[in-house]
Amino acid sequence: MRPSKRAPDALRVVSLERGIAKHAEGSCLVKFGDTHVLCTASLEEKPPSWLRGTGKGWVTAEYGMLPRSTGERMRRESSAGKQSGRTLEIQRLIGRSLRAVVDLVHLGEKQITIDCDVLQADGGTRTASVTGGFIALHECLTWMKSRDMVGPKVIRDHVAAVSVGIYRGKPVLDLDYAEDSEAETDANFVMTGSGGIVEIQGTAEGKPFDEAELTAMLALARQGIGELIEMQRAVLG
Amino acid sequence: MRPSKRAPDALRVVSLERGIAKHAEGSCLVKFGDTHVLCTASLEEKPPSWLRGTGKGWVTAEYGMLPRSTGERMRRESSAGKQSGRTLEIQRLIGRSLRAVVDLVHLGEKQITIDCDVLQADGGTRTASVTGGFIALHECLTWMKSRDMVGPKVIRDHVAAVSVGIYRGKPVLDLDYAEDSEAETDANFVMTGSGGIVEIQGTAEGKPFDEAELTAMLALARQGIGELIEMQRAVLG
Amino acid sequence: MRPSKRAPDALRVVSLERGIAKHAEGSCLVKFGDTHVLCTASLEEKPPSWLRGTGKGWVTAEYGMLPRSTGERMRRESSAGKQSGRTLEIQRLIGRSLRAVVDLVHLGEKQITIDCDVLQADGGTRTASVTGGFIALHECLTWMKSRDMVGPKVIRDHVAAVSVGIYRGKPVLDLDYAEDSEAETDANFVMTGSGGIVEIQGTAEGKPFDEAELTAMLALARQGIGELIEMQRAVLG
Amino acid sequence: MRPSKRAPDALRVVSLERGIAKHAEGSCLVKFGDTHVLCTASLEEKPPSWLRGTGKGWVTAEYGMLPRSTGERMRRESSAGKQSGRTLEIQRLIGRSLRAVVDLVHLGEKQITIDCDVLQADGGTRTASVTGGFIALHECLTWMKSRDMVGPKVIRDHVAAVSVGIYRGKPVLDLDYAEDSEAETDANFVMTGSGGIVEIQGTAEGKPFDEAELTAMLALARQGIGELIEMQRAVLG
Amino acid sequence: MRPSKRAPDALRVVSLERGIAKHAEGSCLVKFGDTHVLCTASLEEKPPSWLRGTGKGWVTAEYGMLPRSTGERMRRESSAGKQSGRTLEIQRLIGRSLRAVVDLVHLGEKQITIDCDVLQADGGTRTASVTGGFIALHECLTWMKSRDMVGPKVIRDHVAAVSVGIYRGKPVLDLDYAEDSEAETDANFVMTGSGGIVEIQGTAEGKPFDEAELTAMLALARQGIGELIEMQRAVLG
Amino acid sequence: MRPSKRAPDALRVVSLERGIAKHAEGSCLVKFGDTHVLCTASLEEKPPSWLRGTGKGWVTAEYGMLPRSTGERMRRESSAGKQSGRTLEIQRLIGRSLRAVVDLVHLGEKQITIDCDVLQADGGTRTASVTGGFIALHECLTWMKSRDMVGPKVIRDHVAAVSVGIYRGKPVLDLDYAEDSEAETDANFVMTGSGGIVEIQGTAEGKPFDEAELTAMLALARQGIGELIEMQRAVLG
Repeated sequence: MRPSKRAPDALRVVSLERGIAKHAEGSCLVKFGDTHVLCTASLEEKPPSWLRGTGKGWVTAEYGMLPRSTGERMRRESSAGKQSGRTLEIQRLIGRSLRAVVDLVHLGEKQITIDCDVLQADGGTRTASVTGGFIALHECLTWMKSRDMVGPKVIRDHVAAVSVGIYRGKPVLDLDYAEDSEAETDANFVMTGSGGIVEIQGTAEGKPFDEAELTAMLALARQGIGELIEMQRAVLG
Repeated sequence: MRPSKRAPDALRVVSLERGIAKHAEGSCLVKFGDTHVLCTASLEEKPPSWLRGTGKGWVTAEYGMLPRSTGERMRRESSAGKQSGRTLEIQRLIGRSLRAVVDLVHLGEKQITIDCDVLQADGGTRTASVTGGFIALHECLTWMKSRDMVGPKVIRDHVAAVSVGIYRGKPVLDLDYAEDSEAETDANFVMTGSGGIVEIQGTAEGKPFDEAELTAMLALARQGIGELIEMQRAVLG
Repeated sequence: MRPSKRAPDALRVVSLERGIAKHAEGSCLVKFGDTHVLCTASLEEKPPSWLRGTGKGWVTAEYGMLPRSTGERMRRESSAGKQSGRTLEIQRLIGRSLRAVVDLVHLGEKQITIDCDVLQADGGTRTASVTGGFIALHECLTWMKSRDMVGPKVIRDHVAAVSVGIYRGKPVLDLDYAEDSEAETDANFVMTGSGGIVEIQGTAEGKPFDEAELTAMLALARQGIGELIEMQRAVLG
Repeated sequence: MRPSKRAPDALRVVSLERGIAKHAEGSCLVKFGDTHVLCTASLEEKPPSWLRGTGKGWVTAEYGMLPRSTGERMRRESSAGKQSGRTLEIQRLIGRSLRAVVDLVHLGEKQITIDCDVLQADGGTRTASVTGGFIALHECLTWMKSRDMVGPKVIRDHVAAVSVGIYRGKPVLDLDYAEDSEAETDANFVMTGSGGIVEIQGTAEGKPFDEAELTAMLALARQGIGELIEMQRAVLG
Repeated sequence: MRPSKRAPDALRVVSLERGIAKHAEGSCLVKFGDTHVLCTASLEEKPPSWLRGTGKGWVTAEYGMLPRSTGERMRRESSAGKQSGRTLEIQRLIGRSLRAVVDLVHLGEKQITIDCDVLQADGGTRTASVTGGFIALHECLTWMKSRDMVGPKVIRDHVAAVSVGIYRGKPVLDLDYAEDSEAETDANFVMTGSGGIVEIQGTAEGKPFDEAELTAMLALARQGIGELIEMQRAVLG
Repeated sequence: MRPSKRAPDALRVVSLERGIAKHAEGSCLVKFGDTHVLCTASLEEKPPSWLRGTGKGWVTAEYGMLPRSTGERMRRESSAGKQSGRTLEIQRLIGRSLRAVVDLVHLGEKQITIDCDVLQADGGTRTASVTGGFIALHECLTWMKSRDMVGPKVIRDHVAAVSVGIYRGKPVLDLDYAEDSEAETDANFVMTGSGGIVEIQGTAEGKPFDEAELTAMLALARQGIGELIEMQRAVLG
């Protein structure tokens, strides 16, 4: 029995609220249950310096948590003077995941930054960030298309992410914090709308897992990501 | 004529939404028009080291802006590796303002941190932070009282803040960004429920101002803060 | 009775010693009693990057305290790796105050940096810095005029600053450290030679102040700044 | 055909040289072809502060690259003032991998730090670090056992790691830099001596991968790690 | 001919002004010609953590330059966020030099910090700092003796420093900036009142030097330091 | 009797292993007994910014120690966020020493960085670095000559370094850590192949030294450096 009473293959209540930031070129407030992440897309008219002259653009991500998004207040990273390894790892993952569905040559020499700021955390902030970040990115590219700044083929597919774990010996989908902190294995999957795998990160927190468990987790992830991508399609109309 | 068509003495639409953060001991989402600030209060059971053994507690504040809360994306301060002078100045002001109405001896050897994170900015983020931060602080102290952690007299009064300026030669209340960036003089006032002045910060951005203008700005501030404190009273029941 | 036996409206002994730095384009050693600040002006032939191409110049300030300028040795900020919020707040105030009397278009695409380094502190270092910084700036502009680098109308007025406070219930002028650390209210005023107010920063350290006290403090400040500007005129000949 | 002419399932020439650091409690110079990593184990008699009083110990890892271990000289991270996201991500992986086979309760309140410094890089530095880091850790624990500082059951199993990728459409084992920089998918596997999976990190650099490819990569990894663990057994006698 | 017209073995005009800092336990404004350094001594009642429980104390030094102490304004190190290698090297030299004449066991578990802040620079700031720092240290120890905080034998000898160089082929004493920037060899000597050598740092900036030149420089240094120590004796009475 | 049983004028076993880094333009693994330093030379096609347009090039050095190169593990400087004063001081010394034998005009607008990374430390890491760094530099310049990137006269002479000290009252050559930590005086000499002195750094750790001791140390250094330069000649063929 999961702490939340959910079935093993049930996502939390998910919502994707578009266009909520007054200033950004794209935005989405994504909620996976009590995990709330505000995603914004910011367009910069020039690419990072190492891409100048190549004709290619870039999509990158930054991630942060409000100090009291968590059960215990965390020290503000700007005050600590640096971003933690966890923060850097997560924002690298979000950036890689989003770039996997963007044609950077069609984007041209521009940069889009997806900021994912966790307003409230209850497990799965990185997977919510990828899923909501895609909506912010999509809005930004639509905004650009309406201004003839890019052609129609910049986005090649949808992308979304979900966590899966082995909790009390059973594979479960979309872990909340109560499960995550106790799970034997915790894995994050990023997949596209056409079912390709973009990223797998699986870690045995307790005892190692085996191939059968990996296969079961993959099946759950595929189902959950399928549902998330349906929601993305619905909200993008 | 103000860009927003408001009367010179009209506040923007203000809302104070209590109890919106799952984890924090107190919280408030404050909106002054399009300026939205999420305020949370976090209790720590011990005071800063320089107060240990004195019997006194402390209230402090931290302030941050989401990178795309503004018209142009700002660099994330955690990535820059330090907080700007503006950030430090604002969080010092918020802390001083809230401490002005708290009896630190009655609080006892504890610390309350008020985090004010700007989700969206349109001028007046520091005054919204003081006004909403008071609600978060009040909720936290109520939470503590219900657990017999403090006595009834910890909060001595309400406190709220508003900006006033000289815009195109006329004193106006509660400047939004369009006015703020053009005002000749910009002043922030912090006042208590009983009308005492806690803080004045007035700066001539263009030509210097005179005593008559200062008096006019003070009158506008007194009226605006009076209205804000009424709203605080209403939301705190 | 003030600890220093001064009358409520008496400045400390003030001295302004010009031209004391061998290398700088302008300099002044300013003393407000036992508060001693060395101010230098450094000319740079190009403006900050965000002003390039605008035809405008910039005046900025930096502030520091020698580690043992104070009663207890303070940690050296270069060793701490960052400037404190107080330092940043003060140098922003000095810069704003001096820019208020300079025509940045007439200055042209150049930058003048006023360094204010506190050799010894006894309260009022920021007001001494503004008052002495003006002399260093004026010397620098005279040096530039003598080389035909600027026209005659770059400086529009004098500017000086003084602190005022409510000490044991009475308004007093130019607080020293003994008063400052006990005052109920502490305010800094920056005013021009023609009597305009450039900046007010007033903070209730103990109980809030009222409009009558604000008015009384303003009157004291106006008198004190008047005297300081007379001294500036005398020393500049 | 692989650039190195290796068969798809062939490791590079691997060597594990034990006991090569005069001062460390354990050490290993590990070579995966031209990738050379010096691993040392350092014992500290007390655990990190958050474990004090729990009876448990800790194993952690730090990772660095010499500036000219790579084809282009990289900036020294100590001079840059911070460790990159990649560095932090790798050292977190090494630490998690080694902790997976250590009984932290049997270790007791101590900390072992595994430093993995890349003397020369040619792809696969993180997998070489895990594989060689295990030898340094094992030596350290043997050193401790010989001094009766820990009991016999601290290490529960072997652990080693290898990279696998999809290169020109085919799964290949143990990528060198020439392959890694061109591979469509790059995955790192960490497994124990008894065949359990400790960590999977798979990333599609080009097009997404599917379940069949994942299964093929897992099979290659299992074989490669099996061979590496045989070498570990041989060198540990 | 030296730019300053001095004889090869002539010091600049040197002055040592004692007791000039209101707050410090010891202080000296030292001038070697146009090089002016303010030295203060600050007593802390406990030693650095690595000396606790040993019965020994410590003397350390910190060094800084005001931004416009030099011909071109230098960036403020607190703003740059770190001290330069040159700064660290100089303050380590000053500390070592002063410790050479202090009995740290007789000092007991305390720490004295000598801050040497360069108000104006014209070559030889580190040698002036050692020479003036000794006076500040001596004053501090006298202050402590008068309070029975240390016994009489804490200081074992005088210590002073001077620079010597090979300028246009000839050994010269006490280089100013004009000579220093052109000298083929630049050497700093630190010696005690009884003639012992505490430190030699000699660097060939142009062509290497030979033993005869080293001997000649040593002779000049011995003479100059003898004169400086006479002045120290005079000022200390 | 020296702890190592060496005669007072005996170097440790020295080896200079050339060409050991796959990627670098020049490299040398230098061993002075148990002190092992990996030196690499990296060519950059443009000089530092302050030399652009002057026709001159630059040779610089960076120095680091692996965390467990020493008896006690040291904190990694990249994790501490800055290089220590000792590190900066040593790398400045290495750079100056190598520049002393390079004609920077003949080098042209390029920069060569010599990285000296201490794999294992047992005293004398800076002198080993200079001695081995010269080989790496020489290899790099040979590599450049073979590509017609520089003419034949870029290197003017050999350069090497050795430490000398007063240990238990007697001058001894090439101190290892056991001697170094107990020596009364510790001096480092850098000299050229033709016998010129490039740098002397002598420090009395205990009682001051006198001219006779300095002369004796210089004689030992001259002999030791002569032997080191013979070895350099042998290895460079």
